[in-house]
Order: sequence, then C-alpha cells, then structure tokens
Amino acid sequence: MRPRLKDVAEHAGVSVKTVSNVVNGYPHVSHDTRTKVEAAIAELAYRPNLSARNLRQGRSGVIALAVPDLSIPYFAELATRVIEAADRHGWTVLIDQTQGERAKELLVVSGIRAQLIDGLLFSPLALTRADLSARSDRTPMVLLGERVGRSRLDHIAVDNIAAARLATTHLIELGRRRVAAIGAQRSASAMTSKQRLRGFQSALGDASLTAHAVAYVRDFHRSDGAAAMAQLLDSGSPPDAVFCFNDTLALGALRTLLSRGVRVPQDVALIGFDDIEDGRFSTPSLSTIAPDKTHIAESAVDLLATRLAGTPGPPPQELCAPHRLLVRETTSL
Amino acid sequence: MRPRLKDVAEHAGVSVKTVSNVVNGYPHVSHDTRTKVEAAIAELAYRPNLSARNLRQGRSGVIALAVPDLSIPYFAELATRVIEAADRHGWTVLIDQTQGERAKELLVVSGIRAQLIDGLLFSPLALTRADLSARSDRTPMVLLGERVGRSRLDHIAVDNIAAARLATTHLIELGRRRVAAIGAQRSASAMTSKQRLRGFQSALGDASLTAHAVAYVRDFHRSDGAAAMAQLLDSGSPPDAVFCFNDTLALGALRTLLSRGVRVPQDVALIGFDDIEDGRFSTPSLSTIAPDKTHIAESAVDLLATRLAGTPGPPPQELCAPHRLLVRETTSL
Repeated sequence: MRPRLKDVAEHAGVSVKTVSNVVNGYPHVSHDTRTKVEAAIAELAYRPNLSARNLRQGRSGVIALAVPDLSIPYFAELATRVIEAADRHGWTVLIDQTQGERAKELLVVSGIRAQLIDGLLFSPLALTRADLSARSDRTPMVLLGERVGRSRLDHIAVDNIAAARLATTHLIELGRRRVAAIGAQRSASAMTSKQRLRGFQSALGDASLTAHAVAYVRDFHRSDGAAAMAQLLDSGSPPDAVFCFNDTLALGALRTLLSRGVRVPQDVALIGFDDIEDGRFSTPSLSTIAPDKTHIAESAVDLLATRLAGTPGPPPQELCAPHRLLVRETTSL
Repeated sequence: MRPRLKDVAEHAGVSVKTVSNVVNGYPHVSHDTRTKVEAAIAELAYRPNLSARNLRQGRSGVIALAVPDLSIPYFAELATRVIEAADRHGWTVLIDQTQGERAKELLVVSGIRAQLIDGLLFSPLALTRADLSARSDRTPMVLLGERVGRSRLDHIAVDNIAAARLATTHLIELGRRRVAAIGAQRSASAMTSKQRLRGFQSALGDASLTAHAVAYVRDFHRSDGAAAMAQLLDSGSPPDAVFCFNDTLALGALRTLLSRGVRVPQDVALIGFDDIEDGRFSTPSLSTIAPDKTHIAESAVDLLATRLAGTPGPPPQELCAPHRLLVRETTSL
C-alpha cells in the first residue's frame, strides 16, 4: 500500500502536523527534525501529491535565484549560501544563469515561470531601475548585490562605492602613488563596475591623487585580469598598486605579475573584491574586500519569506550588507 | 489585452509553431531563434499558461541537477555547462546540493518532486548501486561522474582509476620515487576517492614502487589539502611528488609548500585532478587531469532528451567521458 503522511510520522517519531510542515515547506522546523522527516520520506518512498497540494496552496516550494555566471566563484559561493538558507525554509532553489544579458534578464523578471516558482532572488547586471519597476509580474522578488537607487523594491545591496573607497584608501595608505584600477567596463549597464570605479576615483581624489591608469575589461574572469595587467606593465609606466574590481581579475593579474618576475607586494601591491576561497590560498594570499555573503543570502531569503507570508508586511526594504577589508600578503610588506 | 502566442510570433518574426516549440521546451530550435523568441516573450510580457500546459503534456520544462557542493569549482563549472546544454533544449535547471549526505541523496532519487521535474542528472557520492537500482520513482535519471559498476542505469562516467594512473605515472616518469597521495577518505561510500586511490596504487605497483604516504582528508577543500600537506612535511620524511585527488586539495597543498619555502616542482612535484580555472592561473600553474566537462554535460543532457522523447530508445547506456593529462608548471622542470 502506498505510504501515507501518518506512516511517515510514525517512522520519524514525530507528529503528522510536523511531517505536513516539512512537506509543505513551512519554516520554523528545526534542521534536525527536517532531516529526520526527510530520511523517513526517503526510506518509505512517500510521495506527496504535489499537484493537488500546489493547486490548493498556490505554492511550489521552489524559489529561483538568477545570477550572471556560476563559474565566477563569488556567485557559486553566494548560491551555496542561498541554497542553505532556503533549505531552512524547506525550499528548493532553481538557478538561472543570465550571463548578464539584457534579454535573459528581462525573461527572468517577465513572470514566465510564475506558476512554477514562489519567489525570485535576482542579481541583475544589465537591467535598469526603470526596467525593474516596470515589471508587471507579481511574483515576490528580492534584488541582490547592486544598489540601483530608490526603486521601491526589496533589495539586499552591497555598498560598492564605499567598499571600493576602502580598498583604494588601503593602497594609498601603503604609500603608493601610482595606483591603477582593473575592471572598468564600457557597457552602459555595468553598474557594479561603474560603482567600484567611482569609489576608486573618489578615494584618490580625497588624497589629491589621480588614477595612474584604468584598465577596461570585457568580463570579470581571470583571463581578463591577466591580459589587463600585461597591458599595464607594457605601458612603459607600470603602477605600484592595483585595485582589481573582483578577486578573479586580481588572481589573473597576480599570475601575470609573478610570471614576469614582478614582486608582489614590494613592486606592485594588489587588492581584489569578493573574498572568494581561492584568494585565501594563493601565494601570496590576496587582500580583498569581503562582503558578508552569508548575511546577503540569509537576509534575502528571510525577506522573501516575509513577502510569502502574505500579511501586508513592511514597505519595500533596502538593506545594506556589511563588508570589511581583509589585509593579506598582496598588500603586507 | 493579454498577448497571445500569435503576437509573440509576429513580434519575433517567426511562425506560431516555432514560438510554441520554444515555449514547450522542444529541442532542435536554434540558439538564435530561441533568443529572438525569448526576447519577444519578455518584451510583450507574454505568459503561457503553464499549469494547463503541464497538465496536458505532463512536462514542466525543468530538469534537476543534484551535486554534492557548488562551492567546489568542479561542480560549479559542471553546473554552468549543464545549464548551457539544457538551455539548448529550452530547459531550466534546478540545482540541488546534497553535501554528499546519504539522507539528502536518497531524497533526490525518491521522486518527491516527480511532478515538478521532467528528468534528473545526479552526481551521487554516498549512494550505492543497490540504492540506485532499488529506486521506485520513474523520473528519467542520468548518473554523472562515478563509475558504480554494471547498474542498468544511464550513466556518464569518468574513468577515475585510469585517470589516477595517468597522473601518478606522470610523477614517476619525472624520476620521483617518494610519491604520496592526498585525498584518501575513510567513509565506505567515498567512491571517487577510493577509485583514485586504486589508480594511484596501481601505477606505483607497475613501477615496483609503494606509496610513500597516503594522507586522509575529510573534504576535498583547499583547507583539507593545506593541512594534509603540512602533515606530510612534518612527518620527517617528506615526499618528492604528490598526487592530490582534486585541484582544490592541490591548491591548498601548494599554498603550504610555498609558504614554507619548499620549491615546486624542484623539491616537490604536484598534480591535481579536475582542471578548474583556478589552477590555470596559480603560480606555479597546476598540472592536472582534465575530464571533458563539456562532453559530460552535453552527453548527459542529450541522453535525458532521448529518454524524454518517449520512444523505447536504447537500453541503459554507460558512456565514458574522455580525460587528458595537462602538464603545467607544478610538474615541469
């Protein structure tokens, strides 16, 4: 006979109500209890009738996370943390890769999967505030990562300008005066890059300096950083410090410096942004700006849970995730 | 008025049939056409009635990919390629993280989401062949990565034993005789680790050598590799070559070696496994075994498409993905 909710409850040694809470994806079930119930479900091969349940509740237990590119470790690490945070609500996470392309990002917010997902966490690159505000789909959405200005949308932001100022000021305080940046982008929509460039220039301005050089890149991959650093070194007037707009750019730049016999940090000091695991184990280890990824993931999931709870809830919130400077070997003499 | 299929077709300049093919997730729509149709869908805010469609077709257009850990770059890179391959079929990918835990892996194959997903790509760590064969759920499934033996299941495998032999033989051919391994695991279910250890020992046996040391780890993270290498160096009889069972272990080990002033490869040669982007940009760059991740992703998705096509199709297939040795600086003198 096909196992029922009651059988799962007996097998797990919990109440039917608890099994129901797990199956229906309600929060406030402890991790241990959830694990126990899930094990019982698996062992008995219990299958809730999802179609019936979804029709009744209008819920799928699935949220979507849309990011530009999982092969950039920052997004992979963020995705891991979102999956963990969602798991505590009993939610499954569907991951979309947009490549930062406008058409794909528009599709993400178009509501095409409104019947499939309960909510959306979205880290946009190409869409503007106007695009996002014009959206007609009513699936709850929380934006991640970019401060796009007063948008009347739920939003967990990183203060890119302040963070980039912090990185640049750190280089200046080492006594460096030929400070360059790697990671500017020409596309009108590259908000992350633009904000970090602004913070970089603002810190230099405060120290009565100007940028020694600003290297443009297509993507934020290691290969882009390696090529940009080669350009800076070949320019005839190499920098003595470089702020790279993310860690993968910085690790690519580091590879170029070391392979040419340039000493880091003695000849060129280097700092990145993101605090990916990678940079903790490079030699020399990479100084960086660490946005609190766990905080971002948990706040975003919690904010979505508030919206899904259905009660009026607070007005749209813009929360700013904390960040800090991590001084490692690429900037310590 | 709410836009209809016809409106999307006109806007995109294609036939209604083509729009329908895109919306219904049929393969054999070119990437360009799909992009054009998706842009039109987004611009017109067209929303297909998914519930009705799913009931009619019994299809959601969603496949699941279950991997142990996205923060291990191998799985993030594999996920990226699966998403790209699935995109060509018009499918969305839902990603599950199992942490290699038996209870979570059982849940993945239990069919609890049978109504939500059309098919499953699964990279198991803890489940045995018996577990997988005993599964009662009928959602099409393709296994990735582990050769679990004759299992009557669709499977894209990496020949871990042959690949580990190749890595180890390369170290021996450098003239190294104190060859150690990092990455053995005590858990009975750690198949990847066991197979790579077997290949390692087999290559040594063929050269009439025995393992200089075998370091056990809990996980395959950089920190595990760094700690294991410290142990090997502190043992009083350090190795002159080390095969690490993946690249993140090797990058952790490299960090320990360099920070202690050990020269790589002069004093200790080092090779990893996976060919993650990371190892291409480390200094020295990391020699490795490169399984063809694109091949794995595309074969798996194509195999799933064959199953979903519904026709009887071939009997369960076990395909072996190609791999090759990449000699970089950690093993070139």
